[in-house]
Amino acid sequence: MADQNELEQIAYRIQTALQNNQVEEASTLLQELHPADQADVFQRLNDREQSLVFPTLSVIATADLLEELEDDEVLEAVEDLSIEKLADVLDEMEPDEAADLLGDLPPEQASEVLAQMEDAEEVKPLLGYPDETAGGLMTTWYIGMRRQTTIEQAIEFLRQIEPETEVPYYLYVIDREKRLVGVVGLRSLVVSDPKKTMESVMDPEVIYVTAGTDQEEVAEVMTRYDLTSLPVVDHQHRLIGVVTHDDITDVMEDEATEDILHLGAVESAGLLDKSYWEQNIFNVVRSRFIWLLALFFAGTLTGIVLKNYEDELQTVVALSFFIPLLMGTGGNAGAQTVATVIRGMALREVRVRDIFQVWWREFRAGLLLGAMLSIVAIVLGLFWQVDLPLAITVGITIAVITTFANTVAAVVPILATAIGLDPTIASGPMISTVIDASGLLIYFTLAAWILPQL
Amino acid sequence: MADQNELEQIAYRIQTALQNNQVEEASTLLQELHPADQADVFQRLNDREQSLVFPTLSVIATADLLEELEDDEVLEAVEDLSIEKLADVLDEMEPDEAADLLGDLPPEQASEVLAQMEDAEEVKPLLGYPDETAGGLMTTWYIGMRRQTTIEQAIEFLRQIEPETEVPYYLYVIDREKRLVGVVGLRSLVVSDPKKTMESVMDPEVIYVTAGTDQEEVAEVMTRYDLTSLPVVDHQHRLIGVVTHDDITDVMEDEATEDILHLGAVESAGLLDKSYWEQNIFNVVRSRFIWLLALFFAGTLTGIVLKNYEDELQTVVALSFFIPLLMGTGGNAGAQTVATVIRGMALREVRVRDIFQVWWREFRAGLLLGAMLSIVAIVLGLFWQVDLPLAITVGITIAVITTFANTVAAVVPILATAIGLDPTIASGPMISTVIDASGLLIYFTLAAWILPQL
Repeated sequence: MADQNELEQIAYRIQTALQNNQVEEASTLLQELHPADQADVFQRLNDREQSLVFPTLSVIATADLLEELEDDEVLEAVEDLSIEKLADVLDEMEPDEAADLLGDLPPEQASEVLAQMEDAEEVKPLLGYPDETAGGLMTTWYIGMRRQTTIEQAIEFLRQIEPETEVPYYLYVIDREKRLVGVVGLRSLVVSDPKKTMESVMDPEVIYVTAGTDQEEVAEVMTRYDLTSLPVVDHQHRLIGVVTHDDITDVMEDEATEDILHLGAVESAGLLDKSYWEQNIFNVVRSRFIWLLALFFAGTLTGIVLKNYEDELQTVVALSFFIPLLMGTGGNAGAQTVATVIRGMALREVRVRDIFQVWWREFRAGLLLGAMLSIVAIVLGLFWQVDLPLAITVGITIAVITTFANTVAAVVPILATAIGLDPTIASGPMISTVIDASGLLIYFTLAAWILPQL
Repeated sequence: MADQNELEQIAYRIQTALQNNQVEEASTLLQELHPADQADVFQRLNDREQSLVFPTLSVIATADLLEELEDDEVLEAVEDLSIEKLADVLDEMEPDEAADLLGDLPPEQASEVLAQMEDAEEVKPLLGYPDETAGGLMTTWYIGMRRQTTIEQAIEFLRQIEPETEVPYYLYVIDREKRLVGVVGLRSLVVSDPKKTMESVMDPEVIYVTAGTDQEEVAEVMTRYDLTSLPVVDHQHRLIGVVTHDDITDVMEDEATEDILHLGAVESAGLLDKSYWEQNIFNVVRSRFIWLLALFFAGTLTGIVLKNYEDELQTVVALSFFIPLLMGTGGNAGAQTVATVIRGMALREVRVRDIFQVWWREFRAGLLLGAMLSIVAIVLGLFWQVDLPLAITVGITIAVITTFANTVAAVVPILATAIGLDPTIASGPMISTVIDASGLLIYFTLAAWILPQL
């Protein structure tokens, strides 16, 4: 394990070596590191340095490194490899990672490489599944045993194949048709009588998912039941692969990133498999512009509302002083509710059928918060020496807007989910725009009732 | 594994059984489930139903269930248990979970229970560590072996102690002073020659953390190196515990929740160990009011700015139509940048020393986005038949505000981190308020230059 400073120093030593044409030494320095640290150091090198050192790595080191890099760094790096070396490297990689890489290559290149691979059969079955499903996450490196196999035989088999590090801590028991019937932990293998059969020590209550299960649900099942690996079956209940815990932490990071970006009005598609630094400026602009534009047009609603109240604004200019404050408070109250509800839904604490209870909670919270703020607003208004009627208008408006914002923000994410939309997209940025326009209407309506001049 | 509908039906059957005074049957129904599902069903019962069924559970079932419940549900549930039963239950629980529970009990009750426990020695060493550190997360259920132990002896030892499910997949090798010197995977135990010693099969390059390491870093190390368990050492490098993968997924969920709530202007403290439904309305209001109030006062800045431009507003009322739109766009552009930068920091892609590069990227992105939006704004203004000078003012303002918002939002989270503040608290809600007021100043300054009437 190395900390950031050490890694930076190693990167610097590699760069110096490369400048002095000591490519061999640079390569050795890199290969001495843990694969995760290799990737870190490799990312600190510039394109030219990467191209110099990458082809000098051993097949195993290349495979390890590729497994750690982000998708589009991988594509860039493999351009420096021959088809033959790439095939060897893919043979060394975990089948799920190899399949991901092949899926990202241009089709003809992918089939050329596949044709050269020795272990193509491990990878081919994985190519057909969408990335974001259990099928896309799973590996074919799992161990299936028949019921009547003894523990002794199983251990002997493991000794012969010398399983790689990635092979899970569980052996799966399958019947004649490859249907999943049980699971045996490596622990039971160690501690049970060697003469016993797999059937007698297996747990028949295996938790599993099917290939089409969405990755978010896969992550939920694995966290819920604290699993380090989860078998995947097809429609005939045949074992076809296993999802391992390292894939799941990636999924959890991606899902959290997606939520945060969507709530911040950034389109996440295409950004999740890139680090901050790999997103070029045009991708950044593309991922944001469409949202800014949509919100801009939604925002013109507030202009239209204001235009309709032109006369009132002309009569009492002081009305306009409070517009940003009122809109800001509504937006903030809405954002608070959205953050709470969205997170509750992501953690599966809030479900669609809870919509009424959520609304009722947020309605009361909004009312309470609004009442407290409206007192503050009235005191502040008087302190600013605006008319009492205007101060009262602002105070009442704040209470109404806060309550309204809370209830809209409580209901919209749940409704969006109910009709199959992504709740974070529908909620975060859009809600505050809707609240802005409605808030203005509420403000002017109340003003017309209360202010004698209007 | 059971889906939500099945669980709901089981909860309903338990409720019916309880109504008919068939407590025994309700208890059996609950105990047949997987512990994670037990917790789910238990949470669907009301307080009275919970109090009826909870004391009837076996010691093991009670321990399993308590391990799955959230902190304050646990406290509520254990009120129904005698000191004796609670001590038995804690003996069954994983030491880290038992220590958490004891830490939450009133001190005198905790020491009474500890005095009655058989395995108090497993738990006591854990009581001193703060919850959010490696020491607070770790368990004392790990297996340490001496270098010269043979694999045969190790397996024999494992058979004797029949390790519980929670015991990790690794054996740690320690020297005479209990210092951590190596690690042996259960896998090597299975596949190596039984006569070999631990020293000859161990990996001496053990990745570890110290007891005081923050949980966020613990999670980062475990995800980075794909570990299912991570040893924790004290200052003399002595092995004192192990953090397991299930604790890490909890940490990751908590960190993501914290980020989302802070960006949504909700104080997360006190909410992370409660589910959405357990947060009573006064906690909700408390966690939000202070932020709404702070933002309200910050928002009065915009009012002060507008008040200063009272004459201009009186002369050209149309100026006010664009205020919400301009402020909204600035706020949205800032929110996009904050979301991107904050997430980059959470994933350790963006570091403090990168501040200048981040600023430069976001400056260019803001300029580009602003230029595009300003064209849209001018066309829209003409379409709305406002004066050309006003439309141009709005267009230029939008470009300036967007660029300004992007750069402020890029720099603030990083500066906050540099001086030791939580970047999500400092950034999300506060930035948009600052941008609002600065945006208005920019707008009126530009208007005074461009509009002939002013």
